[in-house]
Amino acid sequence: MTRDIHILTEAELRRFVSVDETAIDIVAKAFASLAGGEVIMPPILSMDIPSEHGEVDVKTAYIPGFDGFAVKISPGFFNNPKIGLPSTNGLMILFSAKTGVVEAVLLDNGYLTDVRTAAAGGLAAKLMAPSVVDTAGVMGTGAQARLQIEAAHLVRPFKKVLVWGRDAEKARACASDIAARLGVEAVAETDPAQLVAESQLVVTTTPSAEAVLKADWLHPGLHITAMGSDQTGKNEIDPNVFPHLAAYVPDRISQCEILGELRSALAAGTVKTTEGLPELGQVVLDPSLGRKSDQDITLCDLTGTGAQDTAIATYAFAAATKAGAGVTVEA
Amino acid sequence: MTRDIHILTEAELRRFVSVDETAIDIVAKAFASLAGGEVIMPPILSMDIPSEHGEVDVKTAYIPGFDGFAVKISPGFFNNPKIGLPSTNGLMILFSAKTGVVEAVLLDNGYLTDVRTAAAGGLAAKLMAPSVVDTAGVMGTGAQARLQIEAAHLVRPFKKVLVWGRDAEKARACASDIAARLGVEAVAETDPAQLVAESQLVVTTTPSAEAVLKADWLHPGLHITAMGSDQTGKNEIDPNVFPHLAAYVPDRISQCEILGELRSALAAGTVKTTEGLPELGQVVLDPSLGRKSDQDITLCDLTGTGAQDTAIATYAFAAATKAGAGVTVEA
Repeated sequence: MTRDIHILTEAELRRFVSVDETAIDIVAKAFASLAGGEVIMPPILSMDIPSEHGEVDVKTAYIPGFDGFAVKISPGFFNNPKIGLPSTNGLMILFSAKTGVVEAVLLDNGYLTDVRTAAAGGLAAKLMAPSVVDTAGVMGTGAQARLQIEAAHLVRPFKKVLVWGRDAEKARACASDIAARLGVEAVAETDPAQLVAESQLVVTTTPSAEAVLKADWLHPGLHITAMGSDQTGKNEIDPNVFPHLAAYVPDRISQCEILGELRSALAAGTVKTTEGLPELGQVVLDPSLGRKSDQDITLCDLTGTGAQDTAIATYAFAAATKAGAGVTVEA
Repeated sequence: MTRDIHILTEAELRRFVSVDETAIDIVAKAFASLAGGEVIMPPILSMDIPSEHGEVDVKTAYIPGFDGFAVKISPGFFNNPKIGLPSTNGLMILFSAKTGVVEAVLLDNGYLTDVRTAAAGGLAAKLMAPSVVDTAGVMGTGAQARLQIEAAHLVRPFKKVLVWGRDAEKARACASDIAARLGVEAVAETDPAQLVAESQLVVTTTPSAEAVLKADWLHPGLHITAMGSDQTGKNEIDPNVFPHLAAYVPDRISQCEILGELRSALAAGTVKTTEGLPELGQVVLDPSLGRKSDQDITLCDLTGTGAQDTAIATYAFAAATKAGAGVTVEA
């Protein structure tokens, strides 16, 4: 019996998958399944390669009702920029949920991760930001700074964006890109306290090891999405922020207590227990677990889940093969 | 900068990689690096999917001095034979050891795993079997029963093979295949005690949860390679075998104490500590850690390591691309 395996490159995947409402809906469905307890999601496999300043993460998740499940391999080799290569790369493999055979190899170089990560941020903003956002702030100036703002803008069409980064030049470039892409006013802001003061929605997208957003800067009606911390040792949010929160929503408690902002808050003692914390998927199913009033201060903590990978990979494969894209090889 | 990714299918890989002395040497090199402590090998990622009678394992290892490192994904879906598909499938992805970029996708359907697993068995026989083996026995009748005997025959050219399995018909078919392949006498033996009595080398290749090789059957000058157990809950070797062993050699202590025969022996109390146990790679570097006399009874416990995957994938890629095989896509 011959069987075809589909090979799709980044260029092809970009034609069919982007940061849009469909991506947000797919990721919402994955989180809802995760909250429902039906998803099987083992701990992340992680390999450090100190001699090359490298690391490799492998994530997977099985979601009942999806035709396939993805295994994602994400290498990050941080000497690469010196030789003109991006630090992060990788691919996803999509397997049949019924037979485990390889359906597709998605050579996305991390693109699908960018999309599903931004889509989770869009979902967080949709569920947890105040109903009206005039100004959004972003801390960090990389690819996710741009994409998170793009995703949030789909669900809260703000008019102004403030961008803060340690490198003012990069902040200006990021603001300029955002202005061009979304047709909004976007400016670099050198004072992060001022950025938070003016924004109703702030997304932190840095790899910082020390808090970049301080408790002193909080104000009523602020929603924060922290998506930069995905490793032990990273920390974007001042642990003293937590006592002020009407809702703290991790994407996955078991990950956030090791890799996310929850880790620092537990260590600092500003969170005593993880019991009763609603995960993002529970807020999808029951939005009242998130924001209750426009005066609430809320925080969503995103570390990234294999469920999102399975959801976006399944969608990308269906969309690309429907259009006849990619090459096939015989299994 | 454009960059090519090589896609190689099982049919292509079979042209360039087989169970031979080169494969044994490559795997020996991987084990030696593992023993030297230079290898980075994280714990296996494992996902059970009970509703589909499925499981997925992901292994990887970084070996300094190898050009690449492999990530191997091995799904096993045990309802597949009912619809005419093999239970086990999977692929390996080869990444640059310097930059982490994807070099090759090896769509081997588990073939390279078969080869590197058999090669480890060949290595165990080479290092630990008595110098003269007239008769080899194999317990189990699957693909590895055939391949383990093929690999062992490369290093101990025995004249006779005995095959035992729970299904006598399958044992006869396996014996017939072995006879045809190696040109030796090969017969099915219905009494496993008799098989062990007549053999100087026994390889166990079953997925059994209860010991198939009993301590009562041991005799001087016997070497056993147990390669069937690779999961908690599997057990091929009677824990009472252990006190009789002059050498017990696990491929990797940290795996065997969870997944291998060592687990049952520790549970039964016939092994008290793992301290001082030589791993297979240490025996590669110093064969005197294995068999000391032709009268010794020895056991090698193989659970399978990511280091073997990286070694065989690196070799397969080099051999196949040198010959210009496979298709390339632009990264």
